[in-house]
Amino acid sequence: MKDQNIITIKGFKASGVAAGIKASGKNDLALIYADQHCSAAAVFTKNKFPAASIIVSREHLQAEPESIRAIVVNSGNANACTGAEGIKNARLMAEQLAKNLNLRPSQVLIASTGVIGRPLPMDKVIAGINQAVPKLKGNGWLSAARAIMTTDTRPKLAQKIIPGPVQNISFLGMAKGAGMIHPRLATMLVFIITDAVVAHTALQSALQFAVDRSFHCLTIDGDTSTNDSVMLLARAPSTAAPEELITENSEKFLAFRDVLVTVCVDLARQIAADGEGATKLVEIIVSGAHSYEDARAVASHIAHSLLVKTALFGNDPNWGRIVCAVGNTDALFDPQKVVVKIGVYTVFQHGVPCLKDMGLLRDYLKQNQQIEIKVELGAGTNEIRFWTCDISTRYVKINAHYHT
Amino acid sequence: MKDQNIITIKGFKASGVAAGIKASGKNDLALIYADQHCSAAAVFTKNKFPAASIIVSREHLQAEPESIRAIVVNSGNANACTGAEGIKNARLMAEQLAKNLNLRPSQVLIASTGVIGRPLPMDKVIAGINQAVPKLKGNGWLSAARAIMTTDTRPKLAQKIIPGPVQNISFLGMAKGAGMIHPRLATMLVFIITDAVVAHTALQSALQFAVDRSFHCLTIDGDTSTNDSVMLLARAPSTAAPEELITENSEKFLAFRDVLVTVCVDLARQIAADGEGATKLVEIIVSGAHSYEDARAVASHIAHSLLVKTALFGNDPNWGRIVCAVGNTDALFDPQKVVVKIGVYTVFQHGVPCLKDMGLLRDYLKQNQQIEIKVELGAGTNEIRFWTCDISTRYVKINAHYHT
Repeated sequence: MKDQNIITIKGFKASGVAAGIKASGKNDLALIYADQHCSAAAVFTKNKFPAASIIVSREHLQAEPESIRAIVVNSGNANACTGAEGIKNARLMAEQLAKNLNLRPSQVLIASTGVIGRPLPMDKVIAGINQAVPKLKGNGWLSAARAIMTTDTRPKLAQKIIPGPVQNISFLGMAKGAGMIHPRLATMLVFIITDAVVAHTALQSALQFAVDRSFHCLTIDGDTSTNDSVMLLARAPSTAAPEELITENSEKFLAFRDVLVTVCVDLARQIAADGEGATKLVEIIVSGAHSYEDARAVASHIAHSLLVKTALFGNDPNWGRIVCAVGNTDALFDPQKVVVKIGVYTVFQHGVPCLKDMGLLRDYLKQNQQIEIKVELGAGTNEIRFWTCDISTRYVKINAHYHT
Repeated sequence: MKDQNIITIKGFKASGVAAGIKASGKNDLALIYADQHCSAAAVFTKNKFPAASIIVSREHLQAEPESIRAIVVNSGNANACTGAEGIKNARLMAEQLAKNLNLRPSQVLIASTGVIGRPLPMDKVIAGINQAVPKLKGNGWLSAARAIMTTDTRPKLAQKIIPGPVQNISFLGMAKGAGMIHPRLATMLVFIITDAVVAHTALQSALQFAVDRSFHCLTIDGDTSTNDSVMLLARAPSTAAPEELITENSEKFLAFRDVLVTVCVDLARQIAADGEGATKLVEIIVSGAHSYEDARAVASHIAHSLLVKTALFGNDPNWGRIVCAVGNTDALFDPQKVVVKIGVYTVFQHGVPCLKDMGLLRDYLKQNQQIEIKVELGAGTNEIRFWTCDISTRYVKINAHYHT
């Protein structure tokens, strides 16, 4: 992926630099900048020990819901479990960027990812911010995407365009992956920008809707970090003519929200495929559920089953583990009506196995890096899609051998 | 552990034989026999796809709550997801043992563990039962404990005696471990016998109480199998003088129940220590919880965290992952009041790290096979103990490379 392949979005710039926070010397500080006021929306971790960046970003969002101008992100240090000093340092990051760009500190959102419980090296962070500001450019997204990586093996970017009669609406998103690694007790970070003009409340509603159908249907290892953040910037109502504005009542709102979902699903799939040590992206489709919650419970149980995930790693066609995971939920269904498919193969139906040749299934698992598991519950009309990856010996090595 | 070290319990016999169900040729069929009527209690898996043995055992328990006489167990085949044929085969097991011992089939309980979705090889099972009956003996418990093993590396037995003025009450328990392996989609099986005279209802109540405080506080990899069963036999009221009888109103009931808890905890700890690929037994103690449910939620989140478990495998003193797991629950607490200890070391307090020398912690993890994690929530007076093990690369290998 080359910089020139990434679309630019008028009015937005990005940059990424190596500030020396990561011992490796790789990029570890990213900026996103808008030359006009932005409406902002965010979904943060529900963890009871949120990182300092989240506490401060929440304040800034509340103070400037339609006048945010920039985001600063560091990797290599999570600034979590760092008490009052951590909060002070998060504020300093916003202040330093604001000073450089002639903004109010509250116009800056902040995110951090990396080692937990250690003070941010503020001399490096401040020097990094000063260094990154002059590098802001319209096509700086790949550098920025690289600077937010921790154990990710590749940068993750997604772009979509809604063609319009007068003007197109563009989306650009970047993400870093899940898989919580200590000392880089990491995080899922997602930043999306769009040149649509959207009111703050509509933006927050669309983002929550999209996150529920993408990142909330994603698991690598079942843990939610202290730093998880999804942030979305759009052009603020103040920056455009009233006829361009999208509110929840606009005709364009549903199209806007739907495309936002596809951007988020694209990034969520990239995160699953790049899970720590993963060799396979697994898509789980549960249909025929009595309720959406039932569909979610069944998909989530399969996606979290260590036995399912290790079997997929070993190309072992053990559908029994999937059936067992389905049976461990409180979802309403008649076991006799449950149908389980792996790829195109129906493996369980009417309460009994129904694939004679397991070799077919093993070949499917061996030959594909994207595996599909379908469960039809026969109890209603609700459906969900869920994404995960397999769990390999390399996952355990990565997570066992990163010492403090 | 030698046969002669196992206490015998008057009136009970056991045996274990190699019936050829396991390809390895190891013991795979066990019997337990009582020469008088037994009160029986059981706790079964809540999985929606219970094995045939569970469906049939439930019927027999209901028919003969105080006149059960025998248990037959096979390993090497779970007889789960096998439909009507599976039920028929489970009934045949009970019938064959009943014929040999001159009992009604409904006086026999059944358990199976092993590969899912394959028909039981009934010729082998029946020949095995015929072979095991003449081997029943008062000290046959170790052979029986071996015959219920799947991926366990050692048999698991526990014994306790409540000394009494006139007579002692003895307990003898055996277990096979969790860690669900496919094709040996396995199971936790526990069988406990006691020479106490207990009414069925009191026995069921005591067993549920003990299971809630032992096997329900145990996780290896977070999955519940289709076959999990805990069975408890005691002497039936009909076999003894009324003054020996223990009911829920008896003075002796609480002492009986308490010792039953210790037997179950002993077996639960053995199962955790012998988890697939495990190198460490981990005891998690959560105290100061607002409710018992909160204490359970916090302990369970830590015990299920793949990040905590892989870190323990790597002797990585990453307390951050424990704090993060605590924060991921819905338990009520003030994050500032949470104290986390690993062994004797307080690692997190007042919202910030508080151990300077991580080397101490690394040494503790390296030098101990039993690790203690304590979380004090500062929100109440409820407490729980929970057991688990670390997750190693060997766990993944075991579970990835057992092909059908």
